[in-house]
Amino acid sequence: MQSLLWSSVASLLVVSTLPAQTKTIAERLGHPADSKLLIIHADDLAVAHSVDVATFDALDKGAVSSASVMVPTPWITEVAAYAKAHPNADIGLHLTLTSEWDTYRWGSVEAPDKVPSLLDSAGTFPKDEKVVAATAKPLEVEREIRAQIERALALGIRPTHLDSHMGSLFTTPELMATYVKVAREYRLPFLALRGDPRSPPQASLSDKDVVLDAVIIAGPEVPRNQWKEFYLKAIADLKPGLTEMIVHLGRDDSELQAVTVNHEPYGSAWRQRDYEVMTSPEFRKALHDNHVILVTWKELQKLAQRP
Amino acid sequence: MQSLLWSSVASLLVVSTLPAQTKTIAERLGHPADSKLLIIHADDLAVAHSVDVATFDALDKGAVSSASVMVPTPWITEVAAYAKAHPNADIGLHLTLTSEWDTYRWGSVEAPDKVPSLLDSAGTFPKDEKVVAATAKPLEVEREIRAQIERALALGIRPTHLDSHMGSLFTTPELMATYVKVAREYRLPFLALRGDPRSPPQASLSDKDVVLDAVIIAGPEVPRNQWKEFYLKAIADLKPGLTEMIVHLGRDDSELQAVTVNHEPYGSAWRQRDYEVMTSPEFRKALHDNHVILVTWKELQKLAQRP
Repeated sequence: MQSLLWSSVASLLVVSTLPAQTKTIAERLGHPADSKLLIIHADDLAVAHSVDVATFDALDKGAVSSASVMVPTPWITEVAAYAKAHPNADIGLHLTLTSEWDTYRWGSVEAPDKVPSLLDSAGTFPKDEKVVAATAKPLEVEREIRAQIERALALGIRPTHLDSHMGSLFTTPELMATYVKVAREYRLPFLALRGDPRSPPQASLSDKDVVLDAVIIAGPEVPRNQWKEFYLKAIADLKPGLTEMIVHLGRDDSELQAVTVNHEPYGSAWRQRDYEVMTSPEFRKALHDNHVILVTWKELQKLAQRP
Repeated sequence: MQSLLWSSVASLLVVSTLPAQTKTIAERLGHPADSKLLIIHADDLAVAHSVDVATFDALDKGAVSSASVMVPTPWITEVAAYAKAHPNADIGLHLTLTSEWDTYRWGSVEAPDKVPSLLDSAGTFPKDEKVVAATAKPLEVEREIRAQIERALALGIRPTHLDSHMGSLFTTPELMATYVKVAREYRLPFLALRGDPRSPPQASLSDKDVVLDAVIIAGPEVPRNQWKEFYLKAIADLKPGLTEMIVHLGRDDSELQAVTVNHEPYGSAWRQRDYEVMTSPEFRKALHDNHVILVTWKELQKLAQRP
């Protein structure tokens, strides 16, 4: 499921078509122009308690610098309680239009009769972001992502950024434009990649937008017994600019095994491996040795909100 | 939370004001008139995977004869998959109007703007059935319980009966009347207690309705180290007639500990104890020694549906 997204994301990291900004993000944050800035970002908060405990622990330890939450999923109120107790935790919204697992499904935050093009006959989101691309009406997508933002706010979450679960909002120019429009209205920075051909016309991205130079993500092609090596090499190879490393944390326990049943990629053992590498001394040392500067979306949010 | 319900349920088991039926339920099922009929019923399917695996295991072993599912809760689709794979499993709907835990909350199946009197400002059901009694409009309750039934049917669940989580639908005559009306419309038997003063006027219960003579439930007053003794004594003391023993099964694991955080009664250790007693050889032997006949709601459903 997610692998489709990630491989397509990975293919987008090469071309840079956006005109050079007068100042780099690093300079705008007060760092040397050629700094290696890295957001270590944990996806999928709220999908399961197992994911929440692993991610909260990594946030508490500073092992990840940021995370984002899936508002329509069952443990949203646990994340809201954490967010209220940890107002400095960097938590954004992982806007969600898919429900990818077999026996553990969710649907819209908005009333189903207001977003019928987003739901299947059982009232749940489709499993695949390609279905979203093919069938979701942009107006209903806008309603749903606004409802997710408003529900997060009502629960006391103060999001630092927006991104998109399984990249559903990056699948067509119309959905990407909807996402950018809503993000700007809420004055929130949003995950966007420099040179992404699916982005809205480049003219519509301004110097005030925060655009990532690269994304790093472990895909299904990474050998399971070389997990740590994959991440250590990614850090050694890091280029100057703003990179987001997207990780999926969890515990390989009975809950998460049941959530991810029949799915090895991005499953419970996968998430436990990610957790172990992110909290390992070797990974921490690699960040230090390679002069990596960890940043949060909250810092980037301040840039995005500056008039 | 639930303790309020159960103590109030327990207080209702004494008085019998319904006119004696011409035939007992036992006779209508083909047993001697003075048989001891027992439904062993596991509540709260779908609230957590931990509850589902323990309950599925007990159903598969015949350790419980029936169970009911909370349609608005996160694991509903796992229960639907089980129900479809086990068409003979006796699964009813545990109609739900409360969301009693601290950091794991749910709301209505019906669109929130159609059932505003059922939801708090965060869009979730209240924690306490007394709030339901005080604020829920019967018309909106009817909408919501119909939506729960329709969603279960859409997911492929063929319910054998209806009951009410935390007894919310037993808190006022108006809500009880709504519940009875909807149950009859769907031709489903429903949990009702002989002599319950909160029931609709007794004249409205007919000979065709299945009315329990007693309910057995472990309440907070049961010493935690005398769990098995409580249930063995209940079986030894069982009287002729139709009794439902309501149990709460689960595993004392990290998921269920998180769901039930801050609540010892009906918490994860409680549910593990219930599971252990129900699947124990001593309990099985007590049923046999006391000539208890286990029945299902499906058998009772046939009586209720007979013209």
